[in-house]
Amino acid sequence: MMKRVMLRVAYEGTRYHGWQIQPGDMATIEGMLNQAISGLTGEEIQVIGASRTDAGVHALGNVAVFDTESRIPGEKFSYALNQRLPEDIVVQESREVSEEFHPRYEKCRKTYEYTILNRRFPLPEYRNTAMFFYGGLDVEKMRQAGRAFVGEWDFAGFCSAGAQVQTTVRRIYDLQVERGGDIVRIRVEGNGFLYNMVRIIAGTLLEVGKGKIPPERMGEIIASRDRAQAGPTAPAKGLRLLEIRYDALSC
Amino acid sequence: MMKRVMLRVAYEGTRYHGWQIQPGDMATIEGMLNQAISGLTGEEIQVIGASRTDAGVHALGNVAVFDTESRIPGEKFSYALNQRLPEDIVVQESREVSEEFHPRYEKCRKTYEYTILNRRFPLPEYRNTAMFFYGGLDVEKMRQAGRAFVGEWDFAGFCSAGAQVQTTVRRIYDLQVERGGDIVRIRVEGNGFLYNMVRIIAGTLLEVGKGKIPPERMGEIIASRDRAQAGPTAPAKGLRLLEIRYDALSC
Repeated sequence: MMKRVMLRVAYEGTRYHGWQIQPGDMATIEGMLNQAISGLTGEEIQVIGASRTDAGVHALGNVAVFDTESRIPGEKFSYALNQRLPEDIVVQESREVSEEFHPRYEKCRKTYEYTILNRRFPLPEYRNTAMFFYGGLDVEKMRQAGRAFVGEWDFAGFCSAGAQVQTTVRRIYDLQVERGGDIVRIRVEGNGFLYNMVRIIAGTLLEVGKGKIPPERMGEIIASRDRAQAGPTAPAKGLRLLEIRYDALSC
Repeated sequence: MMKRVMLRVAYEGTRYHGWQIQPGDMATIEGMLNQAISGLTGEEIQVIGASRTDAGVHALGNVAVFDTESRIPGEKFSYALNQRLPEDIVVQESREVSEEFHPRYEKCRKTYEYTILNRRFPLPEYRNTAMFFYGGLDVEKMRQAGRAFVGEWDFAGFCSAGAQVQTTVRRIYDLQVERGGDIVRIRVEGNGFLYNMVRIIAGTLLEVGKGKIPPERMGEIIASRDRAQAGPTAPAKGLRLLEIRYDALSC
Protein backbone atom coordinates (compact mmCIF):
# COMPACT_ATOMS: atom_id res chain seq x y z
CA MET A 1 0.00 0.00 0.00
CA MET A 2 1.22 3.44 -0.91
CA LYS A 3 2.16 5.81 1.88
CA ARG A 4 3.79 9.23 2.10
CA VAL A 5 6.84 9.52 4.33
CA MET A 6 8.25 12.80 5.61
CA LEU A 7 11.93 13.29 6.45
CA ARG A 8 13.58 16.02 8.49
CA VAL A 9 17.11 16.27 7.14
CA ALA A 10 20.26 17.88 8.55
CA TYR A 11 23.19 18.51 6.25
CA GLU A 12 26.35 20.48 5.86
CA GLY A 13 26.06 21.95 2.38
CA THR A 14 29.78 22.50 1.78
CA ARG A 15 30.37 19.56 -0.56
CA TYR A 16 27.09 19.94 -2.46
CA HIS A 17 25.75 22.04 -5.30
CA GLY A 18 22.72 22.90 -3.23
CA TRP A 19 19.54 20.95 -2.61
CA GLN A 20 18.12 20.70 -6.11
CA ILE A 21 19.22 18.12 -8.66
CA GLN A 22 21.41 19.71 -11.31
CA PRO A 23 22.04 18.71 -14.91
CA GLY A 24 25.17 16.62 -15.16
CA ASP A 25 26.82 14.66 -12.41
CA MET A 26 27.01 17.24 -9.63
CA ALA A 27 26.33 16.10 -6.08
CA THR A 28 23.17 17.57 -4.52
CA ILE A 29 21.29 16.85 -1.30
CA GLU A 30 18.16 15.87 -3.24
CA GLY A 31 20.20 13.54 -5.45
CA MET A 32 21.82 11.83 -2.47
CA LEU A 33 18.42 11.31 -0.81
CA ASN A 34 16.85 9.92 -3.98
CA GLN A 35 19.74 7.50 -4.34
CA ALA A 36 19.63 6.34 -0.71
CA ILE A 37 15.84 5.85 -0.63
CA SER A 38 15.73 4.15 -4.04
CA GLY A 39 18.55 1.83 -2.96
CA LEU A 40 16.69 0.96 0.23
CA THR A 41 13.21 0.38 -1.22
CA GLY A 42 14.08 -0.86 -4.69
CA GLU A 43 11.68 1.74 -6.10
CA GLU A 44 12.58 4.76 -8.18
CA ILE A 45 12.09 7.52 -5.62
CA GLN A 46 12.13 11.26 -6.18
CA VAL A 47 11.72 13.29 -3.02
CA ILE A 48 9.88 16.61 -2.90
CA GLY A 49 11.78 19.11 -0.78
CA ALA A 50 10.45 22.07 1.20
CA SER A 51 13.37 24.46 0.67
CA ARG A 52 15.78 24.37 -2.26
CA THR A 53 18.78 25.64 -0.33
CA ASP A 54 21.70 27.03 -2.34
CA ALA A 55 25.19 25.58 -2.66
CA GLY A 56 27.08 25.92 0.61
CA VAL A 57 23.95 26.52 2.72
CA HIS A 58 23.35 24.14 5.64
CA ALA A 59 20.28 22.73 7.33
CA LEU A 60 19.31 21.27 10.64
CA GLY A 61 15.74 20.50 9.61
CA ASN A 62 14.91 20.78 5.94
CA VAL A 63 11.86 18.70 5.05
CA ALA A 64 11.25 16.25 2.21
CA VAL A 65 8.53 13.74 1.40
CA PHE A 66 8.32 10.71 -0.85
CA ASP A 67 5.73 8.07 -1.69
CA THR A 68 6.57 4.42 -1.28
CA GLU A 69 5.00 0.99 -1.19
CA SER A 70 7.77 -0.26 1.05
CA ARG A 71 6.75 -2.15 4.20
CA ILE A 72 9.35 -0.31 6.23
CA PRO A 73 7.44 1.64 8.92
CA GLY A 74 7.67 5.42 8.45
CA GLU A 75 9.64 6.03 11.63
CA LYS A 76 12.27 3.41 10.74
CA PHE A 77 13.44 5.10 7.54
CA SER A 78 15.69 7.49 9.50
CA TYR A 79 17.89 4.67 10.82
CA ALA A 80 17.97 2.75 7.54
CA LEU A 81 18.74 5.82 5.41
CA ASN A 82 21.52 7.05 7.69
CA GLN A 83 23.32 3.78 6.99
CA ARG A 84 23.31 4.68 3.30
CA LEU A 85 23.93 8.43 3.45
CA PRO A 86 27.33 10.14 3.78
CA GLU A 87 28.19 11.64 7.18
CA ASP A 88 27.36 15.17 6.07
CA ILE A 89 23.68 14.30 5.47
CA VAL A 90 21.77 12.86 8.45
CA VAL A 91 18.05 12.17 8.63
CA GLN A 92 16.87 13.44 12.04
CA GLU A 93 13.31 12.13 11.89
CA SER A 94 11.07 10.12 9.59
CA ARG A 95 7.32 9.54 9.87
CA GLU A 96 4.27 8.74 7.81
CA VAL A 97 2.14 11.76 6.89
CA SER A 98 -1.13 12.29 5.08
CA GLU A 99 -0.99 11.66 1.32
CA GLU A 100 -2.17 15.24 0.81
CA PHE A 101 0.76 16.73 2.71
CA HIS A 102 2.99 18.76 0.38
CA PRO A 103 6.05 20.40 1.97
CA ARG A 104 6.02 23.43 -0.34
CA TYR A 105 2.29 24.22 -0.48
CA GLU A 106 1.40 23.53 3.14
CA LYS A 107 1.29 26.56 5.47
CA CYS A 108 4.40 26.74 7.60
CA ARG A 109 6.88 28.82 9.58
CA LYS A 110 10.52 28.63 8.61
CA THR A 111 13.42 29.56 10.88
CA TYR A 112 16.82 30.44 9.46
CA GLU A 113 20.00 31.27 11.33
CA TYR A 114 22.94 33.28 10.05
CA THR A 115 26.25 32.81 11.90
CA ILE A 116 29.09 35.35 12.02
CA LEU A 117 32.42 34.46 13.61
CA ASN A 118 33.55 37.80 15.01
CA ARG A 119 37.11 37.72 16.34
CA ARG A 120 40.67 38.64 15.43
CA PHE A 121 41.51 35.46 13.51
CA PRO A 122 39.32 32.80 11.89
CA LEU A 123 38.84 29.43 13.59
CA PRO A 124 39.40 26.33 11.45
CA GLU A 125 36.30 24.55 12.72
CA TYR A 126 34.01 27.33 11.53
CA ARG A 127 35.58 27.74 8.10
CA ASN A 128 32.57 26.22 6.29
CA THR A 129 29.75 27.08 8.67
CA ALA A 130 30.17 30.75 9.57
CA MET A 131 31.03 34.01 7.89
CA PHE A 132 34.22 35.48 9.36
CA PHE A 133 34.39 39.15 10.30
CA TYR A 134 37.26 40.62 12.33
CA GLY A 135 36.06 44.19 12.92
CA GLY A 136 33.91 45.60 15.67
CA LEU A 137 30.17 44.84 15.57
CA ASP A 138 27.59 46.78 17.53
CA VAL A 139 25.12 44.00 18.26
CA GLU A 140 22.70 46.36 20.02
CA LYS A 141 22.36 48.40 16.82
CA MET A 142 21.88 45.23 14.78
CA ARG A 143 19.13 44.19 17.17
CA GLN A 144 17.45 47.57 16.88
CA ALA A 145 17.57 47.48 13.07
CA GLY A 146 16.32 43.88 13.14
CA ARG A 147 13.03 44.95 14.72
CA ALA A 148 12.10 46.84 11.54
CA PHE A 149 11.82 43.53 9.66
CA VAL A 150 9.13 42.09 11.91
CA GLY A 151 5.70 42.33 10.32
CA GLU A 152 4.27 41.88 6.83
CA TRP A 153 6.23 43.84 4.23
CA ASP A 154 7.03 43.88 0.56
CA PHE A 155 10.61 42.61 0.60
CA ALA A 156 11.32 43.33 -3.09
CA GLY A 157 14.55 45.08 -2.02
CA PHE A 158 15.72 41.98 -0.16
CA CYS A 159 15.56 39.59 -3.09
CA SER A 160 18.12 38.61 -5.70
CA ALA A 161 17.11 38.83 -9.34
CA GLY A 162 16.11 35.72 -11.21
CA ALA A 163 13.44 34.37 -8.89
CA GLN A 164 9.92 33.94 -10.25
CA VAL A 165 7.43 34.70 -7.52
CA GLN A 166 3.82 35.93 -7.59
CA THR A 167 4.38 38.33 -4.74
CA THR A 168 7.36 39.70 -2.84
CA VAL A 169 5.27 40.23 0.29
CA ARG A 170 6.36 38.07 3.23
CA ARG A 171 5.65 38.04 6.95
CA ILE A 172 8.48 37.98 9.47
CA TYR A 173 7.34 36.76 12.89
CA ASP A 174 10.57 37.27 14.76
CA LEU A 175 14.16 38.38 14.28
CA GLN A 176 16.77 37.97 17.02
CA VAL A 177 20.44 38.97 17.10
CA GLU A 178 22.50 37.33 19.84
CA ARG A 179 26.18 37.31 20.73
CA GLY A 180 27.72 34.33 22.54
CA GLY A 181 31.49 34.72 22.85
CA ASP A 182 32.95 35.16 19.35
CA ILE A 183 29.73 34.11 17.63
CA VAL A 184 27.00 36.50 16.50
CA ARG A 185 23.79 34.78 15.41
CA ILE A 186 20.91 36.29 13.48
CA ARG A 187 17.80 34.15 13.78
CA VAL A 188 14.76 34.95 11.69
CA GLU A 189 11.37 33.27 11.54
CA GLY A 190 8.88 33.90 8.76
CA ASN A 191 6.10 32.42 6.64
CA GLY A 192 8.45 32.19 3.67
CA PHE A 193 11.54 33.84 2.26
CA LEU A 194 12.46 35.25 -1.13
CA TYR A 195 15.57 34.20 -3.03
CA ASN A 196 18.66 35.13 -0.94
CA MET A 197 16.42 37.11 1.43
CA VAL A 198 18.03 35.93 4.68
CA ARG A 199 21.54 36.44 3.28
CA ILE A 200 20.65 40.00 2.24
CA ILE A 201 19.10 40.69 5.66
CA ALA A 202 22.31 39.37 7.28
CA GLY A 203 24.51 41.45 4.95
CA THR A 204 22.44 44.55 5.71
CA LEU A 205 22.49 44.01 9.49
CA LEU A 206 26.25 43.55 9.24
CA GLU A 207 26.50 47.02 7.69
CA VAL A 208 24.46 48.31 10.63
CA GLY A 209 26.78 46.53 13.08
CA LYS A 210 29.81 48.13 11.40
CA GLY A 211 28.18 51.55 11.75
CA LYS A 212 27.73 52.05 8.01
CA ILE A 213 23.92 52.09 8.08
CA PRO A 214 22.08 53.76 11.00
CA PRO A 215 19.51 51.37 12.52
CA GLU A 216 16.79 54.05 12.28
CA ARG A 217 17.03 53.90 8.48
CA MET A 218 16.03 50.22 8.24
CA GLY A 219 12.30 50.95 7.91
CA GLU A 220 12.76 53.24 4.93
CA ILE A 221 15.27 50.82 3.32
CA ILE A 222 12.65 48.08 3.45
CA ALA A 223 9.92 50.50 2.22
CA SER A 224 12.11 51.58 -0.73
CA ARG A 225 11.81 48.06 -2.21
CA ASP A 226 15.15 48.89 -3.86
CA ARG A 227 17.85 46.18 -3.78
CA ALA A 228 20.53 48.88 -4.03
CA GLN A 229 19.45 50.41 -0.68
CA ALA A 230 20.04 47.17 1.21
CA GLY A 231 23.48 45.71 2.06
CA PRO A 232 25.42 43.02 0.18
CA THR A 233 24.39 39.36 0.09
CA ALA A 234 26.27 37.63 2.94
CA PRO A 235 28.16 34.43 2.01
CA ALA A 236 26.17 31.18 1.72
CA LYS A 237 28.29 29.28 4.23
CA GLY A 238 26.96 31.29 7.21
CA LEU A 239 23.34 30.33 6.52
CA ARG A 240 21.48 27.46 8.09
CA LEU A 241 17.84 26.42 7.76
CA LEU A 242 17.00 25.51 11.35
CA GLU A 243 13.44 24.26 11.15
CA ILE A 244 10.14 24.26 9.30
CA ARG A 245 7.00 24.02 11.38
CA TYR A 246 3.79 23.03 9.61
CA ASP A 247 0.35 23.93 10.88
CA ALA A 248 -0.94 20.63 9.43
CA LEU A 249 1.59 18.58 11.42
CA SER A 250 1.09 20.45 14.69
CA CYS A 251 4.87 20.59 15.12
CA MET B 1 69.81 39.22 13.60
CA MET B 2 68.47 35.87 14.68
CA LYS B 3 65.30 35.78 16.74
CA ARG B 4 62.98 33.08 18.04
CA VAL B 5 59.30 33.43 17.15
CA MET B 6 56.50 31.59 18.93
CA LEU B 7 53.22 30.69 17.22
CA ARG B 8 49.91 29.66 18.75
CA VAL B 9 48.23 27.53 16.14
CA ALA B 10 44.62 26.40 15.73
CA TYR B 11 43.85 23.56 13.35
CA GLU B 12 41.26 20.99 12.47
CA GLY B 13 43.26 17.78 12.27
CA THR B 14 40.85 15.89 10.00
CA ARG B 15 42.82 16.19 6.77
CA TYR B 16 46.25 15.67 8.35
CA HIS B 17 48.36 12.74 9.48
CA GLY B 18 48.93 14.44 12.82
CA TRP B 19 51.36 17.14 13.81
CA GLN B 20 54.67 15.44 13.17
CA ILE B 21 56.31 15.21 9.75
CA GLN B 22 55.98 11.72 8.34
CA PRO B 23 58.13 9.85 5.85
CA GLY B 24 56.71 10.16 2.35
CA ASP B 25 54.37 12.82 1.12
CA MET B 26 51.68 12.83 3.80
CA ALA B 27 50.24 16.17 4.89
CA THR B 28 51.03 17.13 8.48
CA ILE B 29 50.52 20.31 10.50
CA GLU B 30 54.27 20.65 11.10
CA GLY B 31 54.96 20.20 7.39
CA MET B 32 52.42 22.86 6.41
CA LEU B 33 53.90 25.33 8.90
CA ASN B 34 57.48 24.67 7.73
CA GLN B 35 56.39 25.23 4.14
CA ALA B 36 54.49 28.45 4.89
CA ILE B 37 57.25 29.99 7.03
CA SER B 38 60.03 28.95 4.63
CA GLY B 39 58.05 30.41 1.72
CA LEU B 40 57.58 33.66 3.61
CA THR B 41 61.13 34.16 4.88
CA GLY B 42 63.15 32.47 2.14
CA GLU B 43 64.94 30.47 4.84
CA GLU B 44 64.70 26.75 5.40
CA ILE B 45 62.60 26.68 8.54
CA GLN B 46 61.80 23.71 10.76
CA VAL B 47 59.45 24.51 13.61
CA ILE B 48 59.67 22.85 17.02
CA GLY B 49 56.20 21.97 18.30
CA ALA B 50 54.97 21.64 21.86
CA SER B 51 52.52 18.75 21.36
CA ARG B 52 52.73 16.17 18.60
CA THR B 53 49.01 15.65 18.28
CA ASP B 54 47.81 12.48 16.53
CA ALA B 55 46.00 12.23 13.22
CA GLY B 56 42.45 13.59 13.52
CA VAL B 57 43.13 15.49 16.76
CA HIS B 58 42.40 19.24 16.72
CA ALA B 59 43.93 22.24 18.44
CA LEU B 60 42.91 25.72 19.40
CA GLY B 61 46.33 26.66 20.78
CA ASN B 62 49.18 24.29 20.04
CA VAL B 63 52.53 26.07 20.27
CA ALA B 64 55.51 26.06 17.93
CA VAL B 65 58.73 28.08 17.71
CA PHE B 66 61.23 28.74 14.96
CA ASP B 67 64.41 30.79 14.55
CA THR B 68 64.64 33.33 11.78
CA GLU B 69 66.74 36.22 10.56
CA SER B 70 63.72 37.73 8.84
CA ARG B 71 63.00 41.41 9.49
CA ILE B 72 59.29 40.71 9.85
CA PRO B 73 58.33 41.69 13.43
CA GLY B 74 57.33 38.71 15.56
CA GLU B 75 53.71 39.80 15.96
CA LYS B 76 53.22 40.23 12.19
CA PHE B 77 53.94 36.59 11.31
CA SER B 78 50.38 35.57 12.20
CA TYR B 79 48.83 37.70 9.46
CA ALA B 80 51.46 36.85 6.85
CA LEU B 81 51.35 33.11 7.53
CA ASN B 82 47.56 32.92 7.48
CA GLN B 83 47.73 34.17 3.87
CA ARG B 84 49.84 31.11 3.02
CA LEU B 85 48.16 28.45 5.15
CA PRO B 86 45.04 26.46 4.22
CA GLU B 87 41.79 27.40 5.99
CA ASP B 88 42.03 24.48 8.42
CA ILE B 89 45.27 25.80 9.96
CA VAL B 90 45.13 29.33 11.43
CA VAL B 91 47.86 31.06 13.44
CA GLN B 92 46.12 32.78 16.36
CA GLU B 93 49.12 34.66 17.73
CA SER B 94 52.80 35.21 16.94
CA ARG B 95 55.42 36.91 19.07
CA GLU B 96 59.13 37.01 19.68
CA VAL B 97 60.31 34.97 22.66
CA SER B 98 63.64 34.41 24.40
CA GLU B 99 66.12 32.32 22.42
CA GLU B 100 66.20 29.87 25.32
CA PHE B 101 62.45 29.23 25.16
CA HIS B 102 61.76 25.61 24.14
CA PRO B 103 58.08 24.61 23.89
CA ARG B 104 58.67 21.01 24.99
CA TYR B 105 61.15 21.49 27.87
CA GLU B 106 59.69 24.62 29.41
CA LYS B 107 57.36 24.10 32.38
CA CYS B 108 53.73 24.44 31.33
CA ARG B 109 50.09 23.58 31.91
CA LYS B 110 48.19 21.96 29.07
CA THR B 111 44.42 21.94 28.72
CA TYR B 112 42.66 19.37 26.57
CA GLU B 113 38.97 19.07 25.82
CA TYR B 114 37.10 15.96 24.74
CA THR B 115 33.72 16.49 23.04
CA ILE B 116 30.88 13.97 22.94
CA LEU B 117 27.77 14.63 20.86
CA ASN B 118 25.06 12.90 22.87
CA ARG B 119 21.72 12.74 21.07
CA ARG B 120 19.52 10.44 19.04
CA PHE B 121 21.13 11.10 15.64
CA PRO B 122 24.51 12.55 14.64
CA LEU B 123 24.79 16.14 13.40
CA PRO B 124 26.71 16.70 10.15
CA GLU B 125 28.62 19.70 11.47
CA TYR B 126 30.14 17.68 14.32
CA ARG B 127 31.13 14.67 12.23
CA ASN B 128 34.86 15.43 12.44
CA THR B 129 35.07 17.28 15.75
CA ALA B 130 33.08 15.21 18.26
CA MET B 131 32.56 11.59 19.18
CA PHE B 132 28.93 10.58 18.69
CA PHE B 133 27.09 8.61 21.37
CA TYR B 134 23.32 8.07 21.31
CA GLY B 135 22.71 6.33 24.64
CA GLY B 136 22.02 7.85 28.04
CA LEU B 137 24.96 9.43 29.88
CA ASP B 138 24.93 10.17 33.61
CA VAL B 139 27.06 13.30 33.64
CA GLU B 140 26.91 13.58 37.44
CA LYS B 141 28.59 10.16 37.75
CA MET B 142 31.21 11.16 35.16
CA ARG B 143 31.93 14.28 37.18
CA GLN B 144 32.26 12.27 40.37
CA ALA B 145 34.64 9.79 38.73
CA GLY B 146 36.58 12.68 37.19
CA ARG B 147 37.55 13.99 40.63
CA ALA B 148 39.69 10.88 41.22
CA PHE B 149 42.08 12.00 38.47
CA VAL B 150 42.97 15.28 40.13
CA GLY B 151 46.36 15.13 41.85
CA GLU B 152 49.72 13.55 41.10
CA TRP B 153 49.43 9.90 40.12
CA ASP B 154 51.19 7.20 38.19
CA PHE B 155 49.02 7.03 35.06
CA ALA B 156 50.68 3.89 33.64
CA GLY B 157 47.19 2.42 33.14
CA PHE B 158 46.11 5.43 31.06
CA CYS B 159 48.82 5.20 28.45
CA SER B 160 48.99 3.38 25.13
CA ALA B 161 51.97 1.12 24.51
CA GLY B 162 54.83 2.35 22.34
CA ALA B 163 55.63 5.62 24.10
CA GLN B 164 59.09 6.06 25.54
CA VAL B 165 58.88 8.11 28.71
CA GLN B 166 61.09 8.29 31.79
CA THR B 167 58.16 8.33 34.14
CA THR B 168 54.41 7.74 33.88
CA VAL B 169 53.71 10.08 36.81
CA ARG B 170 51.71 13.17 35.86
CA ARG B 171 49.85 15.86 37.74
CA ILE B 172 46.24 16.71 36.87
CA TYR B 173 45.22 20.15 38.15
CA ASP B 174 41.61 20.04 37.16
CA LEU B 175 39.03 17.87 35.39
CA GLN B 176 35.56 19.17 34.53
CA VAL B 177 32.62 17.43 32.87
CA GLU B 178 29.90 19.74 31.56
CA ARG B 179 26.76 19.23 29.54
CA GLY B 180 25.40 22.01 27.30
CA GLY B 181 22.43 20.81 25.26
CA ASP B 182 23.51 17.76 23.25
CA ILE B 183 27.20 18.33 23.93
CA VAL B 184 29.13 16.75 26.81
CA ARG B 185 32.61 18.18 27.30
CA ILE B 186 35.42 16.75 29.39
CA ARG B 187 38.08 19.36 30.08
CA VAL B 188 41.32 18.35 31.74
CA GLU B 189 44.31 20.43 32.75
CA GLY B 190 47.67 18.92 33.67
CA ASN B 191 51.43 19.39 33.63
CA GLY B 192 51.75 16.88 30.81
CA PHE B 193 49.96 13.89 29.35
CA LEU B 194 51.07 10.39 28.34
CA TYR B 195 50.41 8.94 24.91
CA ASN B 196 46.61 8.74 24.37
CA MET B 197 46.07 9.61 28.03
CA VAL B 198 43.19 12.08 27.51
CA ARG B 199 41.48 9.75 25.04
CA ILE B 200 41.70 6.87 27.55
CA ILE B 201 40.39 9.13 30.34
CA ALA B 202 37.49 10.12 28.05
CA GLY B 203 36.80 6.50 27.09
CA THR B 204 36.82 5.49 30.76
CA LEU B 205 34.53 8.33 31.86
CA LEU B 206 32.18 7.35 29.05
CA GLU B 207 31.94 3.85 30.57
CA VAL B 208 31.09 5.53 33.87
CA GLY B 209 28.43 7.67 32.18
CA LYS B 210 26.88 4.54 30.64
CA GLY B 211 26.76 2.90 34.07
CA LYS B 212 29.33 0.21 33.22
CA ILE B 213 31.97 1.40 35.71
CA PRO B 214 30.88 2.74 39.14
CA PRO B 215 32.44 6.15 39.82
CA GLU B 216 33.72 4.96 43.24
CA ARG B 217 36.02 2.50 41.47
CA MET B 218 38.00 5.17 39.61
CA GLY B 219 40.62 5.57 42.36
CA GLU B 220 41.52 1.89 42.37
CA ILE B 221 41.51 1.74 38.56
CA ILE B 222 44.12 4.51 38.48
CA ALA B 223 46.08 2.86 41.33
CA SER B 224 46.11 -0.49 39.49
CA ARG B 225 48.32 1.05 36.77
CA ASP B 226 46.78 -1.61 34.53
CA ARG B 227 45.64 -0.51 31.05
CA ALA B 228 43.10 -3.34 31.00
CA GLN B 229 41.25 -1.86 34.01
CA ALA B 230 40.60 1.45 32.23
CA GLY B 231 38.07 1.97 29.43
CA PRO B 232 38.72 2.01 25.66
CA THR B 233 40.63 4.78 23.88
CA ALA B 234 38.00 7.27 22.67
CA PRO B 235 38.24 8.31 18.98
CA ALA B 236 40.81 10.95 18.01
CA LYS B 237 38.27 13.28 16.40
CA GLY B 238 36.69 14.24 19.74
CA LEU B 239 39.98 15.54 21.15
CA ARG B 240 41.16 19.12 21.07
CA LEU B 241 44.25 20.73 22.59
CA LEU B 242 42.82 23.97 23.95
CA GLU B 243 45.84 25.78 25.33
CA ILE B 244 49.34 25.55 26.71
CA ARG B 245 50.30 28.05 29.38
CA TYR B 246 54.01 28.50 30.08
CA ASP B 247 55.33 29.76 33.41
CA ALA B 248 58.16 31.45 31.50
CA LEU B 249 55.72 33.42 29.31
CA SER B 250 53.44 34.43 32.18
CA CYS B 251 50.45 33.46 30.02
